[in-house]
Amino acid sequence: MKKLINDPDSVVAEALRGMALAHPELRVDHENRIVFRGDAPVRGKVGLVSGGGSGHEPMHGGFVGPGMLDAACAGEVFTSPVPDQMVAATQGVDGGAGVLHIVKNYTGDVMNFEMAAELVETEVATVVVDDDVAVQDSLYTAGRRGVGTTVLLEKIVGAAAEQGRPLAEVADLARKVNDRGRSMGMALTSCTVPAAGQPTFDLPEDEMEIGIGIHGEPGRRRVPLAPAREIAEMLVEPVLSDLDFTSAPVICFVNGMGASPLLELYLMYGEVAALLEKAGVRVARSLVGPYITSLDMAGCSVTLLRADDDLLALWDAPVRTPGLRWGA
Amino acid sequence: MKKLINDPDSVVAEALRGMALAHPELRVDHENRIVFRGDAPVRGKVGLVSGGGSGHEPMHGGFVGPGMLDAACAGEVFTSPVPDQMVAATQGVDGGAGVLHIVKNYTGDVMNFEMAAELVETEVATVVVDDDVAVQDSLYTAGRRGVGTTVLLEKIVGAAAEQGRPLAEVADLARKVNDRGRSMGMALTSCTVPAAGQPTFDLPEDEMEIGIGIHGEPGRRRVPLAPAREIAEMLVEPVLSDLDFTSAPVICFVNGMGASPLLELYLMYGEVAALLEKAGVRVARSLVGPYITSLDMAGCSVTLLRADDDLLALWDAPVRTPGLRWGA
Repeated sequence: MKKLINDPDSVVAEALRGMALAHPELRVDHENRIVFRGDAPVRGKVGLVSGGGSGHEPMHGGFVGPGMLDAACAGEVFTSPVPDQMVAATQGVDGGAGVLHIVKNYTGDVMNFEMAAELVETEVATVVVDDDVAVQDSLYTAGRRGVGTTVLLEKIVGAAAEQGRPLAEVADLARKVNDRGRSMGMALTSCTVPAAGQPTFDLPEDEMEIGIGIHGEPGRRRVPLAPAREIAEMLVEPVLSDLDFTSAPVICFVNGMGASPLLELYLMYGEVAALLEKAGVRVARSLVGPYITSLDMAGCSVTLLRADDDLLALWDAPVRTPGLRWGA
Repeated sequence: MKKLINDPDSVVAEALRGMALAHPELRVDHENRIVFRGDAPVRGKVGLVSGGGSGHEPMHGGFVGPGMLDAACAGEVFTSPVPDQMVAATQGVDGGAGVLHIVKNYTGDVMNFEMAAELVETEVATVVVDDDVAVQDSLYTAGRRGVGTTVLLEKIVGAAAEQGRPLAEVADLARKVNDRGRSMGMALTSCTVPAAGQPTFDLPEDEMEIGIGIHGEPGRRRVPLAPAREIAEMLVEPVLSDLDFTSAPVICFVNGMGASPLLELYLMYGEVAALLEKAGVRVARSLVGPYITSLDMAGCSVTLLRADDDLLALWDAPVRTPGLRWGA
């Protein structure tokens, strides 16, 4: 295993230490492994809390800041945070307007966030993101997995909360974004979980996995390596089959799984954009880069979000986080 | 070779196509493989042109935009662009105030930028970046190689040009930044150049290379794999030995080589920051992420820049590029 780490058991704690030092505008609770906005709780604003297993960076800690999340709980690598962390995060961002939990659909995360919501006195609403069209149930999930749409949702809903919209409206918006987002991913190589010390799965030199999850969960099928053009088809086709994307402007997100360089991701974006144009889909905004990763897995995913004027304006609104930053 | 590409010969052209589609605010000259600011030339502003071999993304094309570069020429992977590209870029950004060429110190790049400067009527100044303390001469370089400081320089000098500073002042500033920046890198794995189809060098499972260049050029030495803490020492020590960083605020940049995930880069930043504190170096600003990469190489580099009030203010100034974006 070749990694820039000290001890597999201390990776998360030590990465959080580096993050705190690199981003003094954030406040890191090292005991509870929570990344907070430096000014949390923001009086009168709906607080947004997310979190999940580590290994998907910049998600979620890198999306904390004005215009996006108020706090993110970091679990061990690919392991849900515990309810105590979510309780501390929820209380820490409670500015009197309630708190939204943004939960990717994995059994552990859903259960622990539910438990936390019951343990706090704060008014909590929850959105469960389940946008992955690849498989119905899978290794850690009943129903569809939560993947790339989470990034777009945290940005859009973060902007709405920043505007001062009330909890019910923010929660409805979050569900709307989830309803309108679809993703499909693929892997060229496995990731290696530090504590395991070896690749999660074997993938021969001449094969790739289509429909992979972000923890190395199996996808739809293994196929021979193919050119980027064909890979783009294998990702775009199931997304377009699942929802109509032709009648509204679309946000198109080509995500890197961690080890695929930007050169390849831009090349993939070109292939995806060409397919969308052919299908009559109008791309209004795009995002290209490694935003919801799977440690050192090579591969990519495609997320499409059926937007509208409100969603596009919220997407364009200022955001200031380590992972996404523009405007203001 | 597992890559998201179609044909090894068309990688650069196809990545530029994707970049143009993803960033309509830029203008891509596909024939000459130049990424331009959409509004170039900017009347009365010094134009900044950089470029080099592809495979280091987001550098340089991802650093084109207000507050940074006016144009970037893309060569084939790890191969200098040709003088014709640099001529077209220089003419395309000439707003009447002259043009600065920002050149990483590799023999081909230096020669071709020199030739281009002689071929244009535009007033051209040149800065050659040579900040890598690892080795004196190397595979593609007489003298030190140009690496991480290039990112910081393009940001800082870009802000100065945006303010309307004249060419001589902008060029002096660029040389000052280069004089005050030092870098050292390491690799856990080799990169694979698409046209070669196999790793550039062999690195056994239990070894790493210290002092590596961004094209897989040999470094100082091969050593057994070590914990991040010791890797940080092997990078920070030679940088601190080369220049005094204790008497001024420092910008600290921990760069990913392409395949090392952000989780590991933040962990490395924590180690680097701890060493700097012990050495009496005051970090005023930081940057953590893959900004000057080497295709799919796993590893990282550390760059320190001895700043001052002017450099910090220019660092903080607004920038709007695909790769670096904040403020405004």
